[in-house]
Amino acid sequence: MLNFTHDPAAQSWVAAAQSPGCDFTLQNLPFGVFVREGSDEHPRGGVAIGDQVLDLAHLAASGLLVEPARAACCMAADSTLNAFMAMGPESWQPLRHALFKLLSSNTDAATQEKVRACMLPLSQATMKMPVEVRNYTDFYTSQYHAVNVGRVMRPENPLTPNFQWLPIAYHGRASSVVLSGTGFRRPNGQSRPTDNQFPAFGPCRRLDFELEMGFFVGQETKLGEPLSLSQARGRIFGMCLLNDWSARDHQFWEMDPLGPFLGKNFCTSISPWIVSMEALEPYRVAFERPASDPQPLPYLDDATDRASGSFDVHLEVSVQSRQHRAQHLPGDRITATSFRHQYWTIAQMLAQHTIGGCNLRSGDLMGTGTISGPTPDEAGAMVELSVGGTRPVSLPGTGETRHFLEDGDSVTIKGWCEKPGAARIGFGECRGEVLPALDVGAA
Amino acid sequence: MLNFTHDPAAQSWVAAAQSPGCDFTLQNLPFGVFVREGSDEHPRGGVAIGDQVLDLAHLAASGLLVEPARAACCMAADSTLNAFMAMGPESWQPLRHALFKLLSSNTDAATQEKVRACMLPLSQATMKMPVEVRNYTDFYTSQYHAVNVGRVMRPENPLTPNFQWLPIAYHGRASSVVLSGTGFRRPNGQSRPTDNQFPAFGPCRRLDFELEMGFFVGQETKLGEPLSLSQARGRIFGMCLLNDWSARDHQFWEMDPLGPFLGKNFCTSISPWIVSMEALEPYRVAFERPASDPQPLPYLDDATDRASGSFDVHLEVSVQSRQHRAQHLPGDRITATSFRHQYWTIAQMLAQHTIGGCNLRSGDLMGTGTISGPTPDEAGAMVELSVGGTRPVSLPGTGETRHFLEDGDSVTIKGWCEKPGAARIGFGECRGEVLPALDVGAA
Repeated sequence: MLNFTHDPAAQSWVAAAQSPGCDFTLQNLPFGVFVREGSDEHPRGGVAIGDQVLDLAHLAASGLLVEPARAACCMAADSTLNAFMAMGPESWQPLRHALFKLLSSNTDAATQEKVRACMLPLSQATMKMPVEVRNYTDFYTSQYHAVNVGRVMRPENPLTPNFQWLPIAYHGRASSVVLSGTGFRRPNGQSRPTDNQFPAFGPCRRLDFELEMGFFVGQETKLGEPLSLSQARGRIFGMCLLNDWSARDHQFWEMDPLGPFLGKNFCTSISPWIVSMEALEPYRVAFERPASDPQPLPYLDDATDRASGSFDVHLEVSVQSRQHRAQHLPGDRITATSFRHQYWTIAQMLAQHTIGGCNLRSGDLMGTGTISGPTPDEAGAMVELSVGGTRPVSLPGTGETRHFLEDGDSVTIKGWCEKPGAARIGFGECRGEVLPALDVGAA
Repeated sequence: MLNFTHDPAAQSWVAAAQSPGCDFTLQNLPFGVFVREGSDEHPRGGVAIGDQVLDLAHLAASGLLVEPARAACCMAADSTLNAFMAMGPESWQPLRHALFKLLSSNTDAATQEKVRACMLPLSQATMKMPVEVRNYTDFYTSQYHAVNVGRVMRPENPLTPNFQWLPIAYHGRASSVVLSGTGFRRPNGQSRPTDNQFPAFGPCRRLDFELEMGFFVGQETKLGEPLSLSQARGRIFGMCLLNDWSARDHQFWEMDPLGPFLGKNFCTSISPWIVSMEALEPYRVAFERPASDPQPLPYLDDATDRASGSFDVHLEVSVQSRQHRAQHLPGDRITATSFRHQYWTIAQMLAQHTIGGCNLRSGDLMGTGTISGPTPDEAGAMVELSVGGTRPVSLPGTGETRHFLEDGDSVTIKGWCEKPGAARIGFGECRGEVLPALDVGAA
């Protein structure tokens, strides 16, 4: 449901919020956690606007908010957003609406002055993990991705028979979810024997990214109490960008029969800003499912989800190598697609997660699974772009090519929503750099 | 390494600790978290001895302990054992040794009186979750189990080629790990289409238990820093009993290609008492691996692990149906085996978990995977005992039979170590009851 916070004509007195291409418009107001750069202050919640962070701890103490926005702001000012997420939409919306009014150019000069006193330039903020991730689940909901990868692993039968019946998922590792900007070592591990004798052991030779989005659970649920689709919609706080780094050689050796483990759990990166579901409302689109495909079972189906369960978020991935950096070049874009092409919606994912009784906790992170679009150049992972490592992907800036990621490669995901008649809503970026493997000997 | 706390002749002034079959001997001293029954007190750490709980909060304040045992006792008195686990063996051992001396019959009468004032009968204690489970990983390390289940799923090739090369594992769901005694609803979900058209939806028809042990991580590790086998041994705080309830029909439909999800995440039960690794020392046994099998890669192999990496823990499972309870009968034992038959040791599991750089947190729970012994009546799950649901398992007490679990069935795992020349070390029990499914309609 659209409201005044979605008015594309509304402007902020923070001038940068109106700059072309600015992710953090007045209509966005994403939440994150930060400290002042170089300080030893306690991390606290903030909201991005233009080129500024609004410090929610300062704002909560400013006297500018009334209930229930003030109480919500106190919670959102905490060192993680978990407690704020646990409050539910009845608290999220009043705070967002109050922030919109305070930051709108309609606000009087005296109020603007007081709000400005609670701000810090984004360039002086060091972002922190926005959430203590209690549980992390990763879905597998792009049919294009499933078919692309399936062709590499099971050419005779790329799509498993369950794919069109339920949003497939597995449990990921919560402890190794890190903030954008954190480097990680190329993992060591075993891979499939090539000579049918001994598995290889050593640094991953098929290191990959996975272009994903993440979403966070708001209020917790109880063990044994499933969520309907409509309840599920109300339990989603917001979304971020996510990179589910993957060691394909390790993964493909270990995953039979229980799924990926070390091939995934060495690192998962998320972007620092969480865009609220309310901010994304204008970009809801109909759920694309051909009439000839199986239709969802009743617990995964309702009219609202069909009409507007998907989101049109433009997504891009770029790779910047050591050579790019040596030549002061930006990274090269290697893929671009939209989140709208997923086969299952985020509400369906959450309804599926709870249908057997599994309980959710505030701050639980859900990954959407790799997001690949309908054409080959819209694929969300190197293993697809390079067709299982058989076709080089070019980095035109330096003339290099890649089959998989090399040491020093920095991968950046960007995402935003944009269309005529609506304000731009951006996610910022999710970045990570591959560091050389630890030398653990021949092991 | 054995020390004075392993002396089988040592006795406690708590008389029940010497009763035949008592799990909680002076040589055991397992840790748990409890409240006084019916009180609204804050949960706190305790140690079981005979038929008593020693209240660690009271003991810490009693003046009976000196450093470093006193500081360790303060931490162990917390509402979860996570902070105590994080202290490491340098704190665990002094506290255990001090408790042993205070509870030994060599202690003077005045001290006994003071310690007795810190005690509560076990019958008046309500046990609580001993740990905030941050991450839960479940391994798959019984070759007998892997072959038994593999025969049902892949008759032509029951053991996957990776099994003898690495301890296979997947990430489980931390939020739904519950304490022994907690009932759970039979899960609803999808299962494989039988007519090659529509998947079935409804209550699980192949509900199973899995006999497992669990172990807990002590000090955390850093992202990117693997543990050697010898470091891994020092990171394990202790062990418990674990039941990884499984919905086989849901699991077998959903798990291709990413592994079990809803088939497992509706409930996992653990026993309330955690037996320290030091208490288990006398029951270490050599790691059984035929010389004709592949030998472990160097990072999964050392002389100590080969000589004494396994543990001889006797394990039993019994089922008590509604009919048993109506007739005031105990449950019938349906299987018994030993933990010593696992193909991989717990140190190998932890070394494998970290080899790619995945970080561990204090209180992380690891499941060993289903524990099945060499003979068919030593199998650790109904799917094996009933040979995929084709052969009835009898409950002689009532004359009933089972292929899988029925509503009202209560499953109890018991475990203990016993042998000539060593004191009995018991785990107590891990129990759970199947409640009827929630009616979610035809969905």
